[in-house]
Amino acid sequence: MIEVEIKGYADRSLKKLLDERYKVADVRLQEDIYFSHPCRDMRQTDEALRIRVERRKKEEVASLTYKGPRVDEKSKTREEIEVGITDPRGLKMILERLGFRVIAHIRKRRTIYSTEGFKLSFDEVDGLGCFVEVEEKVKSLKGYQERRDKLLNFMKDLGISRLERRSYLELMLDKLTKG
Amino acid sequence: MIEVEIKGYADRSLKKLLDERYKVADVRLQEDIYFSHPCRDMRQTDEALRIRVERRKKEEVASLTYKGPRVDEKSKTREEIEVGITDPRGLKMILERLGFRVIAHIRKRRTIYSTEGFKLSFDEVDGLGCFVEVEEKVKSLKGYQERRDKLLNFMKDLGISRLERRSYLELMLDKLTKG
Repeated sequence: MIEVEIKGYADRSLKKLLDERYKVADVRLQEDIYFSHPCRDMRQTDEALRIRVERRKKEEVASLTYKGPRVDEKSKTREEIEVGITDPRGLKMILERLGFRVIAHIRKRRTIYSTEGFKLSFDEVDGLGCFVEVEEKVKSLKGYQERRDKLLNFMKDLGISRLERRSYLELMLDKLTKG
Repeated sequence: MIEVEIKGYADRSLKKLLDERYKVADVRLQEDIYFSHPCRDMRQTDEALRIRVERRKKEEVASLTYKGPRVDEKSKTREEIEVGITDPRGLKMILERLGFRVIAHIRKRRTIYSTEGFKLSFDEVDGLGCFVEVEEKVKSLKGYQERRDKLLNFMKDLGISRLERRSYLELMLDKLTKG
């Protein structure tokens, strides 16, 4: 499976448009904590380690995610291993004892819309602004290009012209280092 | 809280005696996977990282545990942080991606007896033999010595003369390195 994922800069007024056009499937408050490795520059190796605590309607769900290096220049395809955890605070303590350090906190409010065939969400990210993300899983590279073009057109129709390939973590780290 | 813990070598015939004297509270099959750190000699720093999968009567429970260095020479007191996990295989993969390596598998069958005031268990450890472990938590160092002597007497009464301060991990690693 290949993941087609496109992200673009948006403003709050676009959320109104999406709210009118689509049904809101879910609103999630996501708090992501990213860690540095005790002896490996994960920015160089293009890896990431994250604890996510997600507040949904009534429940709180937490997970630990490892993201491997992106496999090519053109897509964001990468290995992702995610496991559910019951005690994010305890796991953070264990990681810190092992020499991992918190490098970024990313908090966002993600509104997920009901759409057919692809995932559509509006992200309000603390300190970074608003983004629209579309995502779809396809089986082959041929299907990949076709779907990518369709999703690109979808973004264009929404009036989104500025796309962003960097992850929120990269955007946050770039902001922190460049000021 | 201070943990008083004494472990001694036993043989299978002792289990019969314990079965007669005490009620079996639980039997647990524990499979422990210990990891080495990507850039720290945890044997030198006296730390340990373990994934445990425990099969109880009907359920399977898994956890991740970090053990810090023992704080003094005389007791086994050390920081221990344990969190519940839902996917031990996934977490093992994440740890391996981060450079942690499996250094030992320790499988044991732990029989836990109902006793008053302290924990009593009989461990049958694959490749290491049988052990009796007694454990009690006390509030002060004064209480500690008194309880330790009482537990030492308890072991003596059972006919256990050879005590062992090393953890199962240390015993296994010593066995593996010394052959």
